[in-house]
Amino acid sequence: MIVRGEAMENEINLQCPVPIQGHDRIQMGHGGGGKLSQQLIESIFVPLFSNAALLARHDGAVFEAGGQRIAFSTDSYVVRPLFFPGGNIGDLAVNGTVNDLAMCGARPLALSAGFIIEEGFPMESLKKVAETMSAAASRVGVPIVTGDTKVVDKGKGDGLYINTAGIGIVECGFTVDPSRMREGDSVIVSGDLGRHGVAILAVREGLQFETVIQTDCQPLWGVVQSLLKAGLEIHCLRDLTRGGLTAALNETAQTSGLSIHVEEAKIPLREDVKGACEMLGLDPLGVANEGRFILFLPAHQAEKAMEIMRRDSAGAGATMIGRVGKERPGLVTIQSLVGVERILDMPSGEQLPRIC
Amino acid sequence: MIVRGEAMENEINLQCPVPIQGHDRIQMGHGGGGKLSQQLIESIFVPLFSNAALLARHDGAVFEAGGQRIAFSTDSYVVRPLFFPGGNIGDLAVNGTVNDLAMCGARPLALSAGFIIEEGFPMESLKKVAETMSAAASRVGVPIVTGDTKVVDKGKGDGLYINTAGIGIVECGFTVDPSRMREGDSVIVSGDLGRHGVAILAVREGLQFETVIQTDCQPLWGVVQSLLKAGLEIHCLRDLTRGGLTAALNETAQTSGLSIHVEEAKIPLREDVKGACEMLGLDPLGVANEGRFILFLPAHQAEKAMEIMRRDSAGAGATMIGRVGKERPGLVTIQSLVGVERILDMPSGEQLPRIC
Repeated sequence: MIVRGEAMENEINLQCPVPIQGHDRIQMGHGGGGKLSQQLIESIFVPLFSNAALLARHDGAVFEAGGQRIAFSTDSYVVRPLFFPGGNIGDLAVNGTVNDLAMCGARPLALSAGFIIEEGFPMESLKKVAETMSAAASRVGVPIVTGDTKVVDKGKGDGLYINTAGIGIVECGFTVDPSRMREGDSVIVSGDLGRHGVAILAVREGLQFETVIQTDCQPLWGVVQSLLKAGLEIHCLRDLTRGGLTAALNETAQTSGLSIHVEEAKIPLREDVKGACEMLGLDPLGVANEGRFILFLPAHQAEKAMEIMRRDSAGAGATMIGRVGKERPGLVTIQSLVGVERILDMPSGEQLPRIC
Repeated sequence: MIVRGEAMENEINLQCPVPIQGHDRIQMGHGGGGKLSQQLIESIFVPLFSNAALLARHDGAVFEAGGQRIAFSTDSYVVRPLFFPGGNIGDLAVNGTVNDLAMCGARPLALSAGFIIEEGFPMESLKKVAETMSAAASRVGVPIVTGDTKVVDKGKGDGLYINTAGIGIVECGFTVDPSRMREGDSVIVSGDLGRHGVAILAVREGLQFETVIQTDCQPLWGVVQSLLKAGLEIHCLRDLTRGGLTAALNETAQTSGLSIHVEEAKIPLREDVKGACEMLGLDPLGVANEGRFILFLPAHQAEKAMEIMRRDSAGAGATMIGRVGKERPGLVTIQSLVGVERILDMPSGEQLPRIC
């Protein structure tokens, strides 16, 4: 049984640019990684910047240069607050871009770092963030080779914004992106969901839980590398950042033109995260993670993949949550805990502003 | 005769990290591209991110990957206002990064674009900027292959900040950076100075001149490519952005450990720019440009280089302004119009905030 929610009326067709309906000004939701972000990108940037790499709509671009396949990705980080349980903006800025490269199957080679600092920002805090970035980069073995520092007037920023871009090399012999997804593929998630978003929200809202929920921010290249080395036929990888699992499933379904079906009962969620989400009025499947990803590969390789993932702390909670089909092109369906099947629609993007 | 100004007491030694003397908070000058910016970078980022590419202290990093030399550079753009005579933040964001790659002798291959947009920013303005970026990228033939969009709350930004990063390929057989500079090299500037800074300042201060002074923002890869194709032995290239000619000369003198001597009478300046600078209390040599560079190469190739440059609109005003020596390692001297020789010290960075 399919229950189509109201939100489906606004379903967007990614094949052609859509107008930013009724929005003549930017709203917070345009940065939330959900439906509004998609509309913004598809209506303004994609038609103007159109090229093959961008149209792949993946976490990073992959292109050929001198016989090598180079991956290239960028993200700006505007998380609020800058420091939170288990990390700070510096971890996000390094791991976020490393992970976008990893999702292309690329070994990270070099990072850039651009700082936009608000006048009056404490030098000690800047140093702490830079130290964190240095440690995070060392952990993955990727140097920060170039950078830029800008300062904006007091009241024209929020302490610190960081942009990182990264270059990686795709060494495996195939492409890892949504175009490779196939009917029958298994969908595996690397661990329990929602910790990063809840860690941030708890600080913002001044909430205290029995245990402090820490961000899941971590680099994913190690576990991806193990999967590639094992010769598994990985079709697509996607990290579960803004918009969480829900956005990642919707984006990959739309880009591949296939349908994805998942079972809610199989999706790993910690009790404390579930409780916090209830208290905060959040859907945990739409909450951002910074160290989780989904993996699509042929069903007969799923067990082997999970076995490899579980040997790595970044894949310790690997679980098969669903499969790829072709019944409803571009749509994601979820079988709820009580057995009802419904469309899992793209989040609007408004529930969690400035989460990364 | 050498006249050492007061500023020399604060001379910094780039060979070892220096403390941010007396600054426990970020000031506007830390983003001005002058002495304070240098102190910030050398005291916080360089020691923590230390690696060979970063230590070359060039406009971009160059490193080997799979037998190729890759250049990588990034810049964030926080210019105020966003639209100004002759351009907008979109031209700066594309040409600025293209030019940083060109200064490494690299053919630009791909750009990333990261947008930090303030809630309430007009969609039409965003579209205009994106159109400008698309046109600027097409002009150089470089695709924008990947991007990111973040939105920050009203009052936590200033309309729009853009980061671009760029990848280029160094196809010439040698390195173009300050370490290649040699005693006796000629110093050539590509055209008249100060237009970009004056164009911005005039809008900010509401000044009107007889003619509207437009930004000099333009891509430099074309003229650099012509120089490389002609087989000239280019030692170093540096674009004259934040801190203008003065900062570029000081940085290259410090990094190379050589001295540079220039003659004020030879430095090309338009009368209207000179007049505007006098009115605004600015030293035109320290004002930012966005389409000008200096070139260091063996003296016997200087005439040939200028001949090639003058065939290109981006090098039409090519002029030899000085030479490299080794008398005063790390220092820049200038012979003034009245024949007095003095140290041309690094600007403090406070005169022109948010110029790019």
